Amino acid sequence: MTVGEKHVTGMKATGQKNLMLFSGRTHPSLAEEVAKELGIEVVPTRFDTFANGEIFVRYLESVRGSDAFVIQAHSDPINESIMEQLIMVDALKRASAKRITIVTPFFGYARQDKKHRGREPISARLMTDLFRTAGADRMMAVDLHTDQIQGFFDGPVDHLFALPILAEHIANRVDRSQITVVSPDAGRVRTADRWADRLGAPLAIIHKRRDPDVANQVRVHEVVGTVEDRVCVLVDDMIDTGGTIVKAADALFEQGAKQVLVAATHGVLSGPAAERLQNSRISEVVITNSLPVPESRSFEKLTQLSIAPLVARAISEVFTDGSVTSLFE
Amino acid sequence: MTVGEKHVTGMKATGQKNLMLFSGRTHPSLAEEVAKELGIEVVPTRFDTFANGEIFVRYLESVRGSDAFVIQAHSDPINESIMEQLIMVDALKRASAKRITIVTPFFGYARQDKKHRGREPISARLMTDLFRTAGADRMMAVDLHTDQIQGFFDGPVDHLFALPILAEHIANRVDRSQITVVSPDAGRVRTADRWADRLGAPLAIIHKRRDPDVANQVRVHEVVGTVEDRVCVLVDDMIDTGGTIVKAADALFEQGAKQVLVAATHGVLSGPAAERLQNSRISEVVITNSLPVPESRSFEKLTQLSIAPLVARAISEVFTDGSVTSLFE
Amino acid sequence: MTVGEKHVTGMKATGQKNLMLFSGRTHPSLAEEVAKELGIEVVPTRFDTFANGEIFVRYLESVRGSDAFVIQAHSDPINESIMEQLIMVDALKRASAKRITIVTPFFGYARQDKKHRGREPISARLMTDLFRTAGADRMMAVDLHTDQIQGFFDGPVDHLFALPILAEHIANRVDRSQITVVSPDAGRVRTADRWADRLGAPLAIIHKRRDPDVANQVRVHEVVGTVEDRVCVLVDDMIDTGGTIVKAADALFEQGAKQVLVAATHGVLSGPAAERLQNSRISEVVITNSLPVPESRSFEKLTQLSIAPLVARAISEVFTDGSVTSLFE
Amino acid sequence: MTVGEKHVTGMKATGQKNLMLFSGRTHPSLAEEVAKELGIEVVPTRFDTFANGEIFVRYLESVRGSDAFVIQAHSDPINESIMEQLIMVDALKRASAKRITIVTPFFGYARQDKKHRGREPISARLMTDLFRTAGADRMMAVDLHTDQIQGFFDGPVDHLFALPILAEHIANRVDRSQITVVSPDAGRVRTADRWADRLGAPLAIIHKRRDPDVANQVRVHEVVGTVEDRVCVLVDDMIDTGGTIVKAADALFEQGAKQVLVAATHGVLSGPAAERLQNSRISEVVITNSLPVPESRSFEKLTQLSIAPLVARAISEVFTDGSVTSLFE
Amino acid sequence: MTVGEKHVTGMKATGQKNLMLFSGRTHPSLAEEVAKELGIEVVPTRFDTFANGEIFVRYLESVRGSDAFVIQAHSDPINESIMEQLIMVDALKRASAKRITIVTPFFGYARQDKKHRGREPISARLMTDLFRTAGADRMMAVDLHTDQIQGFFDGPVDHLFALPILAEHIANRVDRSQITVVSPDAGRVRTADRWADRLGAPLAIIHKRRDPDVANQVRVHEVVGTVEDRVCVLVDDMIDTGGTIVKAADALFEQGAKQVLVAATHGVLSGPAAERLQNSRISEVVITNSLPVPESRSFEKLTQLSIAPLVARAISEVFTDGSVTSLFE
Amino acid sequence: MTVGEKHVTGMKATGQKNLMLFSGRTHPSLAEEVAKELGIEVVPTRFDTFANGEIFVRYLESVRGSDAFVIQAHSDPINESIMEQLIMVDALKRASAKRITIVTPFFGYARQDKKHRGREPISARLMTDLFRTAGADRMMAVDLHTDQIQGFFDGPVDHLFALPILAEHIANRVDRSQITVVSPDAGRVRTADRWADRLGAPLAIIHKRRDPDVANQVRVHEVVGTVEDRVCVLVDDMIDTGGTIVKAADALFEQGAKQVLVAATHGVLSGPAAERLQNSRISEVVITNSLPVPESRSFEKLTQLSIAPLVARAISEVFTDGSVTSLFE
Repeated sequence: MTVGEKHVTGMKATGQKNLMLFSGRTHPSLAEEVAKELGIEVVPTRFDTFANGEIFVRYLESVRGSDAFVIQAHSDPINESIMEQLIMVDALKRASAKRITIVTPFFGYARQDKKHRGREPISARLMTDLFRTAGADRMMAVDLHTDQIQGFFDGPVDHLFALPILAEHIANRVDRSQITVVSPDAGRVRTADRWADRLGAPLAIIHKRRDPDVANQVRVHEVVGTVEDRVCVLVDDMIDTGGTIVKAADALFEQGAKQVLVAATHGVLSGPAAERLQNSRISEVVITNSLPVPESRSFEKLTQLSIAPLVARAISEVFTDGSVTSLFE
Repeated sequence: MTVGEKHVTGMKATGQKNLMLFSGRTHPSLAEEVAKELGIEVVPTRFDTFANGEIFVRYLESVRGSDAFVIQAHSDPINESIMEQLIMVDALKRASAKRITIVTPFFGYARQDKKHRGREPISARLMTDLFRTAGADRMMAVDLHTDQIQGFFDGPVDHLFALPILAEHIANRVDRSQITVVSPDAGRVRTADRWADRLGAPLAIIHKRRDPDVANQVRVHEVVGTVEDRVCVLVDDMIDTGGTIVKAADALFEQGAKQVLVAATHGVLSGPAAERLQNSRISEVVITNSLPVPESRSFEKLTQLSIAPLVARAISEVFTDGSVTSLFE
Repeated sequence: MTVGEKHVTGMKATGQKNLMLFSGRTHPSLAEEVAKELGIEVVPTRFDTFANGEIFVRYLESVRGSDAFVIQAHSDPINESIMEQLIMVDALKRASAKRITIVTPFFGYARQDKKHRGREPISARLMTDLFRTAGADRMMAVDLHTDQIQGFFDGPVDHLFALPILAEHIANRVDRSQITVVSPDAGRVRTADRWADRLGAPLAIIHKRRDPDVANQVRVHEVVGTVEDRVCVLVDDMIDTGGTIVKAADALFEQGAKQVLVAATHGVLSGPAAERLQNSRISEVVITNSLPVPESRSFEKLTQLSIAPLVARAISEVFTDGSVTSLFE
Repeated sequence: MTVGEKHVTGMKATGQKNLMLFSGRTHPSLAEEVAKELGIEVVPTRFDTFANGEIFVRYLESVRGSDAFVIQAHSDPINESIMEQLIMVDALKRASAKRITIVTPFFGYARQDKKHRGREPISARLMTDLFRTAGADRMMAVDLHTDQIQGFFDGPVDHLFALPILAEHIANRVDRSQITVVSPDAGRVRTADRWADRLGAPLAIIHKRRDPDVANQVRVHEVVGTVEDRVCVLVDDMIDTGGTIVKAADALFEQGAKQVLVAATHGVLSGPAAERLQNSRISEVVITNSLPVPESRSFEKLTQLSIAPLVARAISEVFTDGSVTSLFE
Repeated sequence: MTVGEKHVTGMKATGQKNLMLFSGRTHPSLAEEVAKELGIEVVPTRFDTFANGEIFVRYLESVRGSDAFVIQAHSDPINESIMEQLIMVDALKRASAKRITIVTPFFGYARQDKKHRGREPISARLMTDLFRTAGADRMMAVDLHTDQIQGFFDGPVDHLFALPILAEHIANRVDRSQITVVSPDAGRVRTADRWADRLGAPLAIIHKRRDPDVANQVRVHEVVGTVEDRVCVLVDDMIDTGGTIVKAADALFEQGAKQVLVAATHGVLSGPAAERLQNSRISEVVITNSLPVPESRSFEKLTQLSIAPLVARAISEVFTDGSVTSLFE
Repeated sequence: MTVGEKHVTGMKATGQKNLMLFSGRTHPSLAEEVAKELGIEVVPTRFDTFANGEIFVRYLESVRGSDAFVIQAHSDPINESIMEQLIMVDALKRASAKRITIVTPFFGYARQDKKHRGREPISARLMTDLFRTAGADRMMAVDLHTDQIQGFFDGPVDHLFALPILAEHIANRVDRSQITVVSPDAGRVRTADRWADRLGAPLAIIHKRRDPDVANQVRVHEVVGTVEDRVCVLVDDMIDTGGTIVKAADALFEQGAKQVLVAATHGVLSGPAAERLQNSRISEVVITNSLPVPESRSFEKLTQLSIAPLVARAISEVFTDGSVTSLFE
C-alpha cells in the first residue's frame, strides 16, 4: 500500500483528474476526431444489440473516478441513439465515474420544446430529465433549437455555437456587402438576427400567412424585407426534409434574389432532403458534422464543416476548469 | 362519528373536492373579480410585514383538503411579491391543502429564460423550481414571455392567452384591412405572427442593426416590411419602460405609417413608461389587468381590459376536470 | 357555475374517478381487447413519427383528472416502444391526469437486472427510473423476468402471473402424472419450481457446465434430474431466439424424454425463433399475447393464449380499490 | 362491471375515502383505544420477527386506496419500534394506500434535534427523512421535544398538545393560587411558560451552573425565582431516567417548597426511574399513555391519563378535512 | 494540450481546489473585510436591478470548478437580499462551480422556525429548501435563532458563535463578579444559559405573564431571579425594534438593577430601535457587524464588533478540510 | 494563510484525498483487521446508548473532506445495527465528509427482496433507500442475497465475492473429482451454479415439493441429480437457523452421499444453529467472518475464513480509482 503518506487514522493521496472520452455508435468518426484533437483515444467499449433490439454496453477499461464525456449524435434511428446514450450513462454511474457530461452535438426532440396545443408532451424537457435521472451531471450541446432548452436541464450546460465556423465560410464565398440574411420562418428570426449582426447585413423574413380573401387557404411565403438583387443567405439551426428551405428559396427568387445560399448547423437531411436541395436553385448548402451524413443523404451542393476542434476545445476547458464562454468572445 | 358507514376494519366517506381561492397582497382587485366570477369569496388571510421586512401569513379558515388556487401578480416590489406567494404556498402545504395551483397572471423573471452570455442565471427556471419546492403542484399563467417556460415547471401548466381579448378590442377600433401587425423586436416575431394570423394582416418587423460603416455604432430600428399608409399595431407580451415601443413607433411614422396602436398583455409600465407613452404619437395603448396599474402609472391613452373572466373560467375547468384547451379553440 | 353547493369562501363538488385507457402503437389489438373487457374504448390519440424518427403524441380528448392506464408492449423496435410510452406519460402528466399507471405486459430490458461483470448498466432499474421521471405513479406488469424488479420501481407494482392460464392449458393437453417440469437454465429454476408446485410434478434442470477435461470447452446441457419416459414441460418467462430452448429439448430427448412441450409467458420470438422451434422435436409452444406476434414470427406449433381478461380484471381492481392479490388466491 | 356509468372512452365512479387504522407491536392497547373511539377496528396484520431479528409485516386485508394511519409508539427497544413502523409504511406504499400518516405519540430521537458540538448527527431530522423516504405523506405527533421538529418533516404535521389534559388534572388536585410552575432546566422554559400561562401561575427555573470558585466543578440546581411555601409543579415534555426531575425536586424543597408535583407528556421511565421517583419526596407524577408503561416501570405515585380520545378526534378531523387547529382553541 | 501526462485512453491532471469569494449587494464591507483576512479579493460581479425590480447577476470571471462562498446579509429589504443570493447561487451552479456554500451571517426568517398556531408557514425551513433548490451544497451562519435550524438544511451547516467575541468585550467593561445574565424572554433562556456558563454568572429571566386578577390583561415583565444591585447583561440573538429589550431593562431597574448592558449578535435595529435604545437607561448596546448598520440606524451607545476574522477563519478551515469545531474549543 | 498560491480573486490549493475508516459497534474486530491491512487505524468514535435505547455517535477527529468508509455488520440486534450505521452516515454528511461508502459485509433484510404475496414490504429496497437518504453515496457488500439488490441502491455498488476464498478452502480439503455441488433450495441454484463452474463439478438440487397423494402435505427434500458416493458440498449465501441445511444434508445421506460439507459466506447462525449443525452428520461448516460469531454461537465443526484482506483491497482500489472488477478476474 503505497498510495499515500500515513496519517494518524487515515491515509492521504493527491487528488487526480482523469479525462475519459466515450462514444456511442451513431457517429464514431466525430468522436475519434475529437479524441485526436485532445491527443487521447476513445475508451474501448463493447456494444451489443440483442435479437429483440435491447442494447448492451460494457466498458473494457476501468472508468472509476473519471471525468467522463459521452459523445452521441441523436441521429436516426433517434430513439435508439438516445437510449444507447442513457444506458452508457447508467453504466458509467454504476462504475463510479466521478462526473458525467453528455455531449450531444445535435440534441434530439429539441423541436418539441413547448406545447403547441393542449395534451402534448414537452419532449425536450423529458429528454433532459431522462439524462439527469440516468446520471448525467452536465450537458454540452451545439446550437440548441431554442436557447431556453439550457434551462430544461437541471445542471450546467455548455452551449456551443457553430455560427463563427459557418459564417466564416460564407464570408469567404460571397461579397459581404451583397448579403441579406433571411429567416425561413417567423419563429427563427432570432438565429437570423445573430447572423445579420455578425455579417453586418440586412435582414429579411419569410412569413407564411393566410390569404384573407380565400377561406382556409394559406398564401405561403410572403417575403418581408428587401431581397431584390441580393445574395440571400437562408439560415436555420437545422435542415430536416428541406421542404421549408426550398420553398423559401423559391419565394426569394420570385422576389428577385440574385443568389441563395443555405447555412445551418445540423444536417438532419431526412427523406427527400438530398434530392430536393440538389435539384433546387440553391447554390450551396453549408452544414457542420454535428450529425453523420451517410453517403445516401449527401449531394454535390453540400458542404460539411467540422465542429470537432470546437468540441475538443470546449471539453478541454471544462476538464481544466478554464472558460467555455471565452471561446466565443 | 357519523361521517361514514361502518366497515369491518375501516370507515368510508364520499370524497369531496373543495375549491378555495387565495390572494396575496399585490393585486387584490383581480382576485376579487375572479372570485366574483366564480361565485365565491377569497379566503380571509392575515398578512403581516415585520419591521425588518419579513412577511408572515396565516389563513383564518381551515384549508385542509382544499383544491387551492393562489393568485399573485408578480408586480413591483417583485421579489416581495414572489416571496409572499412562496410563503403562502408553504403554509398551504403544511396545512394539508390537497392540491396547490399558483396563478401568476404575470410570471416574474420570465425574461431571464436563458443565458445570454456565460455565468448568468436562468432565473425563470429558478423561479419555477422555487415554487415547486415550496409545494406548488400546478401553475396557471397568462402569456408567458416564451412558451418554453411551460417546460421549466415540473408539473402541469395551464397557459392562457389574452390574444382573443386584445385582438377583439383592436378589431373593433380600426378597419382590419388597414392593419399591419408589427413586432418591435426580431426576438418577438412569434407573437406578432399569431396576431397577423388572427387578424389576417401582413407583418412587419423592427430590426435593430449595427451600421456597418460606423464602428461600434448601432443604427437602430430598421423597419423590415411595408408600413406606409398602414395602421400599425405594435404587439408584444409586455410593456416595461416603454422605450422600445416608443422608438419603434417613431421608426414606423418615419416610414410613413398612418397610425400606431400598441397592444400587450402585461402592463409593467415601470419608471418613465406612462409619460413616454402619453407623450408619444401612439394613439392607444391596450393592456390587460394581469398586473395592477396604480394611478401614478396610468395615463389617458391607456385602455385596460380584464382577464378575470378568462382566469375564472380556467380555474373552473381545472376544478371540474374540464378542458382548458377548449377555451381557446 | 353549477358544479357545487355554495360555501362561505369556497365551492364544493363530489369527487369523481375517471378510468381512461391509452395505448401506444406496438400492440393495439391487446389494448382493444382489454378495453372491450372493461366495456370502454381506448382514448383516441394522434401519433406521428417525424422524418428523423422523433415521435409525437397528442390526445384527442381531455384527460384532466383521469385515472390513466397506458398500455404498451415493449416489442421490437424496443427502444422506440419504450420512448413512445415515456412520451405518452409525459403528455398525460402535463395534461393533468390524476394518476398514471404504465401497463407493460412485457417489460423491456428486464434481463439486464444486475451487473454480470463490472462496468455494465443495470438497464432494468434504469427503465423503471425513466418511467418514474416521466411521471408514472404506478406500474403493472406480467411475469417480470425476476421478482426483484418490483423493487426497482419506486412506487406500487401490480405484478400479474400468467402461470394459471398457461398451466391450465398444459394440464388439459397431457396427463398430469406424466409431466416433469424442466428449467432450461440453472438461473430459471424459481419459475420451474412454481410450475412443479402447481402441477404437483417433479422437477429437472438443464445445467450448462464446462467439461473439466477440455480446456475452455463448455459441455453444455447436462440434465439434472430424471426425464426418461416423461412428458417434459420446459418452462421459462420468455422465448427469445429459441436457441436455449431447442438445445434443452434436444438434451431431454437424448436422456429419453417421451415428449417435450414448451410454455412461456412472453413470446419475443426474435430472429430464427419461429423456424428453429417449428423444425425442432418440440410438440407445442404455448405463449400468451403479452407481445404481438406478427405473422412472420408465427408458426404452426405455436399456441397463443390471451392475457387480456387478466389485465382487464387487474385494471378494474386497481380502479375500484379492490384487490389484485385476490386474483391469484 | 357496474362501478360506473359508461362514458365515450372512459368509465366514471364516485370517489370514496376509506380510513384504515394500523398498529405496530409496541403499544397495541393505545391503538385499540383509538380505534374504539373511532368506532372501527385496527386492520389485522401479521408480524414476524425472524431468528436474526429481521421484522416482517403483511396486511391481512386489502389496503388499496386507503387513508392509512399507522400508530407506533417509539418505545424501548426503540430502534426496532422505528424500523417496524418504517417497514409498515413501505408495505402500505407498495400496496397502493392512497395517503399514509404516521402517528407517533412519542417521536423517537427527538432530543437529538441539533448538533450540540461538531461531528454529531441530527437524528431527529434523520428520522423524519427516513419516514418520508419509506412513503409517509403526513405525520401526527404529541408534544414534540421542540416545536421546530415540525419543520424537519417535509410535509404536513399535525402537532397535538397534551397540556389541556395534564393541566386539568393538576388543577383538580391543588389550589391554583398556590402553584408555581417550575422548569427543571434552562432549555425547557418554553414548556413551563405555556403551563404558567394556562394556570395563571408564576414561573421558576432550575438553573445548573458552574461554581466560579471551584475549578471544573458544577454547582447544580440553582433555583431562579421564588418557591418558598409554594406548590411546585415541575413540568417537562418527558421523564426518562428521572434523575433531573428528582434533583430538581430536592432543590425546590431545599428552597422551602411546600409540595412538588411532576407533570410530563411522555413517560419514558427508563432504568431507575420508577424507583427513584417513588422514593423521592415528589407527591405525584402525572403522565399520559403516549408510551406503554409496563408493570415493571409503574409505581404507586404514577398517574397515567389517556390521550386516545385526543388522537382519535385528530384522526377524524384529518380524515374528514376538518380542523385540527380548532381542537386547541 | 499540456494539462496532463498522456494515458492510453484518457488524460490525467492533478486536482486543484480554487476558493472564490462572492458577495451580494447588501453588506459589501463585511465581504471585503473577510476577503482581506483571507488575502484574496471578492470576485468582480455585475449586478443590475431592472425597472420592475428584477435582479440580474453576471460574474466577470470564470468560476468553473471553484469552491464558492457566497456572502449575503439578509438585511432590509430582506426579500430582495434573499432573492439576490438565490439568483447568485443559480448562476454559480450553471457556471459549473464545484461546491457552493452560502454564508449568511444573519439568516432571514429564522424566527418563523415553527408553527405557533395552525395554517402558518415554517418560513425558516422554506428558506433552507429554497437555497438547496437553487444549488447551495453547504451553509455557514452565525448564531441561528434556534439551533434546530441546522437541521432544516439538507446538507452540512457550519454554525459559528459570536459569544466569545461579545463576552470578551463585556468582560473587559465590567467586573465579572457583579454580572447577572438576563434573558429578556422565557423562550431565549438557552442563550442566556450559555452566557452565564461562560461568565460564571447567575441567571435571571424576564417572564411575561397574565395578571390572574384582571381578565385579558397581561402583567408584563415579571423578573424571575435576583437582580438588585447587579450589573445586568441582557442577552439575545438579535435586536429588532428594541421594544422587548427596553421594557426588560425598565423591569430590571424597577427591581433595583445597578446597571443594564445589552449584548446581541445581530443588530437588525428596525424602525424605532435606535431612538428607543439611545433614550433608554441602558448603558451600552453591543452587537456584531453580521448585519450592516446604516448611519441612520446607528446611535451613540452602540458598539459594533467585527465577525469578519471569525468568518474568514471558518471559510479557511472549510476550504482546507480543517476543523470548524476546533475554533470554539 | 499559506495553503495556496495567490490568485487575482481566489486562492488555489492542490486537491487531496483522505481515506478514513469508521466502524460501528457490531463487528469491531473485522474493522480493525481491515484497518491493519490498509496500514491505518479506525477513526476514534464515541458511542452512547441512552437509557431508552437511542443511539448517539460523535467522531473524535475532524472528518471534513474525507473519503469515508463505514463498516457495520448487520448482525443481531439487526435493527440497532442498521440504525447505528444510518446515524453514523448522517453525522458524517453533516460533518462535511466528501464521499461516504457504507461497507456492509452482510446486508440486512436482503432476503425480503421482493413481494412473495400481496401487501408485503420490499425491505431490501427500503434499506438501500434509507442509507441513500441518510447520505451514503456508495455501497460495498459481500455476496448479496440476490444480485438484483445492486440495482436497489441508487448509486455505485461494489459487490465482492467470497467464493474464491471459500472454494479454495474446500478444494484443499477434498478431492475435487469427488465433489458434487448441491443447492439446498430451488431458489439458490444460481449460487451453486457458480460453485460448480469454479470447481468443475456436477450439480444437484434439493427440491421441496408437495406430495401429490397427500392433501396439504409437503414431501420435502427431493434430491434432483446424482449424489450417491459423492462428496456433497452444500452451498448457500447464508446459514441462518441451519434447519434447511441440516434437512438437506439428511436427504443427501439418504440418497447415498459419502460426505457432506457446507459452505456459506454469511454465518448468521441464529437460535439453534450451532447445536443443530454440530449434532448433524455434516463434516464441516465453512463460513467467513462477514458477521461476528460470538462464542455462544460457535461450534467445533465451524471454520471461519477472513474476508478482511478482500475488503481492504477493495477499499484501496476504490480510494485510488483502481479497479474492483479486476480483483475477481
